Amino acid sequence: MKGGLVARDGTILHAERRPTPRAEGPDAVVAAVSAFVTALTEHHPAPGCGSASGFVPGPATGSAPRAVGLVVPGLVTPARAVFSAAFGWRDVPAEAFTDVDLPVALGHDVRAAGEAELAHGLPGDAPSGDVLFVPIGTGIAGAVALSGSLYGGASGWAGQIGHIPVRPGGLPCGCGQRGCLSAYASAGAVAARCGETSAEEVLRRVRRGDAHARQVWDDAVETLALALATYTLLLDPELVVIGGGLSLAGPALIGPLRDRLAARLAFRRPPRVRASRLGPDAGLLGAALLAWRAT
Amino acid sequence: MKGGLVARDGTILHAERRPTPRAEGPDAVVAAVSAFVTALTEHHPAPGCGSASGFVPGPATGSAPRAVGLVVPGLVTPARAVFSAAFGWRDVPAEAFTDVDLPVALGHDVRAAGEAELAHGLPGDAPSGDVLFVPIGTGIAGAVALSGSLYGGASGWAGQIGHIPVRPGGLPCGCGQRGCLSAYASAGAVAARCGETSAEEVLRRVRRGDAHARQVWDDAVETLALALATYTLLLDPELVVIGGGLSLAGPALIGPLRDRLAARLAFRRPPRVRASRLGPDAGLLGAALLAWRAT
Repeated sequence: MKGGLVARDGTILHAERRPTPRAEGPDAVVAAVSAFVTALTEHHPAPGCGSASGFVPGPATGSAPRAVGLVVPGLVTPARAVFSAAFGWRDVPAEAFTDVDLPVALGHDVRAAGEAELAHGLPGDAPSGDVLFVPIGTGIAGAVALSGSLYGGASGWAGQIGHIPVRPGGLPCGCGQRGCLSAYASAGAVAARCGETSAEEVLRRVRRGDAHARQVWDDAVETLALALATYTLLLDPELVVIGGGLSLAGPALIGPLRDRLAARLAFRRPPRVRASRLGPDAGLLGAALLAWRAT
Repeated sequence: MKGGLVARDGTILHAERRPTPRAEGPDAVVAAVSAFVTALTEHHPAPGCGSASGFVPGPATGSAPRAVGLVVPGLVTPARAVFSAAFGWRDVPAEAFTDVDLPVALGHDVRAAGEAELAHGLPGDAPSGDVLFVPIGTGIAGAVALSGSLYGGASGWAGQIGHIPVRPGGLPCGCGQRGCLSAYASAGAVAARCGETSAEEVLRRVRRGDAHARQVWDDAVETLALALATYTLLLDPELVVIGGGLSLAGPALIGPLRDRLAARLAFRRPPRVRASRLGPDAGLLGAALLAWRAT
């Protein structure tokens, strides 16, 4: 988990990481988040505080943190972390995540990252505001921006691009379905399919000419292209922004992805595709946006 | 093509069909539309006039038609029919479709059908306004309603659910891609795969126990379920309305489709799915809505 101190203008004054004790169960994760937040506020004024991508916004002057922004995966309301397959929790109230005497703003990690991309990452880049943000890390999710606003759907579950069936009946996914995009193209899946601990290692093997790693990488790019072709046909975005850890692969990912997306679309032009300018910081900045709104 | 006379309140006062001379090329289709519109206005006051799903709205009193509403497939702007793969035209101005001295409102067939469903087909049925309309006929398209308004995307091409790759590398589609939903689940594809002239004939064979027809019908339902699962994961609709000719299959389509959609979604509930209450009239009513707005 990542935490930090972010000024109102989006300047990251301090950032740090702590391991998430996922194996110890949901209560341990919630307690670890709370301890992380407390530790960061105690180190004030230099640092701020954070959580599973949570942030205390603090002014650039070094004065006290003003609020805690906390973003988590799964189904989230402003009041509760309702469900997360990754952490196994159910109905955790926002207050349970911190012991500090500050307002707490709870949000969805990927949607918050999308808010940060809209606020900080798109200077004049997509006038229609029709943009898909796809952070690719352990898993894959999407933030759907339509006409400049994030779209949550009828029950707040929109954007689950990581679990659309790109290869019906294909590889099993942790969500219980088969053939999901995440099972092929998440950084976690790319690493696991090659017996590596990171997608970076897989990419190194690809560069050394390893045939298996090449096949896994090609599968990731091809299934991403299928998912983006589907999204493009349904929603006609102006721009697709790939974020998260895998976006750090840069041209090795974005170049072939553009080519394959164009090849999948016979009767229309593809949208522009580029790597995020915020990279893995988008989640941090999104949490900070939530927190500043709560002050 | 269908044409008719529609009152302001959506009452269809007159409707008729004419063959579309598709084989004779785009100019012949445009001329046939124009002749159809003229003939209908000349038969006034009883009938109205129409086109490739075009309508002249006329008041219920039998007074003169007030405008022409014209809806066509493909890429359309209010001023021009830009492109249609079905008819092969490019950049036909709205005025070219009629010779009569009435305002002409041009629109997209499926989007107009979606407008009619929103206006006439959803009394209190989906409070969020997050609804997907899928007319299934010769082809398949979708009208994407988000928060009660139709969404067109960055360049007006949203809703192409008929061409998402449900079976990557699968059957060729008329659009130039492979594995598109339309290649399995359109009424045209269902009929063609069984050597029949209509999907109704295929369904009759299914009921008589024909194994090939059963396989083709199952393929149609399964690929529709895949496409709706994908849409649901991306956009979280409250309701899916299946329209067009295939929706007349009723429970034989909707029942299995609901079951397979639920089976495809492991970690969330499916949206409600039902047949359109307007059926194949949705396009007519949508054209009339456009025309009445032009008066």
